[in-house]
Amino acid sequence: MNKITIIGSGAMGSAVAKVIYDSGYKNIVIYGIDKTELSQLKEGKNLKYFPQDTKLPHFQTTDNLKYALNNASYIVIAVPSKFVDSVCKDILKNLNSQVIIINVSKGFYPNSNLSLQEGLKQASKDNEKVMGVVSLLGPSHAEEIVKEQLTVVSLVENGMENAKKVQKLFSNDYFRNYLQEDEIGSEVGGAYKNILAIASGMLFGSGYGINTVAALLTRGLAEARRFNKQMGGKEITLMGLTGIGDLIVTALSPLSRNYSFGQEFAKKGKEALNTLLTVEGLTAIKSVLEIAQRKKIDLPIVFALNEILLGNITLKQAISEIWKRGLKAE
Amino acid sequence: MNKITIIGSGAMGSAVAKVIYDSGYKNIVIYGIDKTELSQLKEGKNLKYFPQDTKLPHFQTTDNLKYALNNASYIVIAVPSKFVDSVCKDILKNLNSQVIIINVSKGFYPNSNLSLQEGLKQASKDNEKVMGVVSLLGPSHAEEIVKEQLTVVSLVENGMENAKKVQKLFSNDYFRNYLQEDEIGSEVGGAYKNILAIASGMLFGSGYGINTVAALLTRGLAEARRFNKQMGGKEITLMGLTGIGDLIVTALSPLSRNYSFGQEFAKKGKEALNTLLTVEGLTAIKSVLEIAQRKKIDLPIVFALNEILLGNITLKQAISEIWKRGLKAE
Repeated sequence: MNKITIIGSGAMGSAVAKVIYDSGYKNIVIYGIDKTELSQLKEGKNLKYFPQDTKLPHFQTTDNLKYALNNASYIVIAVPSKFVDSVCKDILKNLNSQVIIINVSKGFYPNSNLSLQEGLKQASKDNEKVMGVVSLLGPSHAEEIVKEQLTVVSLVENGMENAKKVQKLFSNDYFRNYLQEDEIGSEVGGAYKNILAIASGMLFGSGYGINTVAALLTRGLAEARRFNKQMGGKEITLMGLTGIGDLIVTALSPLSRNYSFGQEFAKKGKEALNTLLTVEGLTAIKSVLEIAQRKKIDLPIVFALNEILLGNITLKQAISEIWKRGLKAE
Repeated sequence: MNKITIIGSGAMGSAVAKVIYDSGYKNIVIYGIDKTELSQLKEGKNLKYFPQDTKLPHFQTTDNLKYALNNASYIVIAVPSKFVDSVCKDILKNLNSQVIIINVSKGFYPNSNLSLQEGLKQASKDNEKVMGVVSLLGPSHAEEIVKEQLTVVSLVENGMENAKKVQKLFSNDYFRNYLQEDEIGSEVGGAYKNILAIASGMLFGSGYGINTVAALLTRGLAEARRFNKQMGGKEITLMGLTGIGDLIVTALSPLSRNYSFGQEFAKKGKEALNTLLTVEGLTAIKSVLEIAQRKKIDLPIVFALNEILLGNITLKQAISEIWKRGLKAE
């Protein structure tokens, strides 16, 4: 029976483990480094992330990576993007079976401007145990998945060969998926929605209304389109689950940490940057601006957002600058 | 000094009048049939739609159409879509000066499958006083406009000749606009977002979460794309202010009547259909399905929504049908 190893015992690791379990694949082990989370997951709970009444399956867990990976067929990586590189290296050293890697983190590969999927592919390309890397992206708050709210995601892989093989792991009566070929477009959507969610949280947190947020998100999406084009992604991908879909759950819901960080920043200013939570949008802003500078892409919204976060201008000044641009065609 | 006539004393008529006033064009008269609204507007209020503390300019108002239209340069039509035809005929009979018509209603022309803009153009094409018809579309709740929340819309016209002339009427420190050439794509976006807002309200009203609503809106947008293509609209328009932008403010905000109608329907069933408020999405569903049948376009979401509204199936049954469709590419 196929063994599935989940790397990461956080909200998304736990939720994805439940999805796979409920899709009929019960041979799951969750690897993590937080002893409390691991022992709670054995009892079907994860109280740091989910309320007391959330019922998860009773999972096998371990803090021994070698044991976790032994004879695995599928490895799900569910850690913050900044740890993906080191986790990947550790995984590659410990494989003793042929695996497909499924990545559910979003953003860019650490210390590079590669997408996470590209980074994982490059890091594993000389390892013959790794048959492929598939990304699971799309509108999917872990907090809602564990409540079995209907959720639809994309399984992303150029060529879709391995993506097809993992479809059944993510198909049950509350979770389903579509295949998506465009790796670049999907990652651009995933990174950009985190950035725009920070801006959206800032606007709502400063008293602006939905008219304004809708304008921000629409014009932000126009920026994402330009960026995506330069990166080689397909425009249409931004209209799908990994684009608009994920933008809606991220930039318009307090369940998103990027959004709530934006709200915090509106209230507390730079003090909000001391958060212990993972705010993927902050990493994404840096990567996007680095790439944009190199490729000479004009991204006024991300640029202005970065200036606000650095404390160089206020939100009001940024809006006023953007507002002054001439009247023109959309 | 250019005279601007607003037809309709409701929420949108009042809000647009304020925008034009604040853009520096003070010679405005509002025509309406509701005496209470007209007398309140003279005092800078419109209490049926806006809270007591909302301050509007003190407008000139009238219930005499001929007087309202006398020597007008611009006519703004801000009435529910089902009245646009009769209002247009009355306007055409009473013109004594050259005008540009600006339509802010959304949906389809009554008793036809034409977009409102197309319908207005056809109805006025033999009247040499009418220089053109421009649509004002995009994410713009009247309730937020009157609070001077920053709002960005599209001025839509094939060729943009008249749209360029009216840009300055809608440009001030809280309201701005972009030009948009694609009349068809804009109207498809405008009609579809009202339909999807009903579905979104139904889902939230029945206890579904944002993951589910995001999936609905994304797959609904895929349907809108197919429909738009058959109608001759441009795909990219659906990613702009009149597409995604308006979808966000309509399908994700209780300020939308379509959304709150969907919530009501979730609670009360068909009884909710007895509402006195204008629910443009209900009219749009009929028009879209009529066109889809004629052109043989497969629109499973709109079709299912219509069946729910007719009482032929429940929301749960509709979702279960859609869920059972095979796993495939996005």
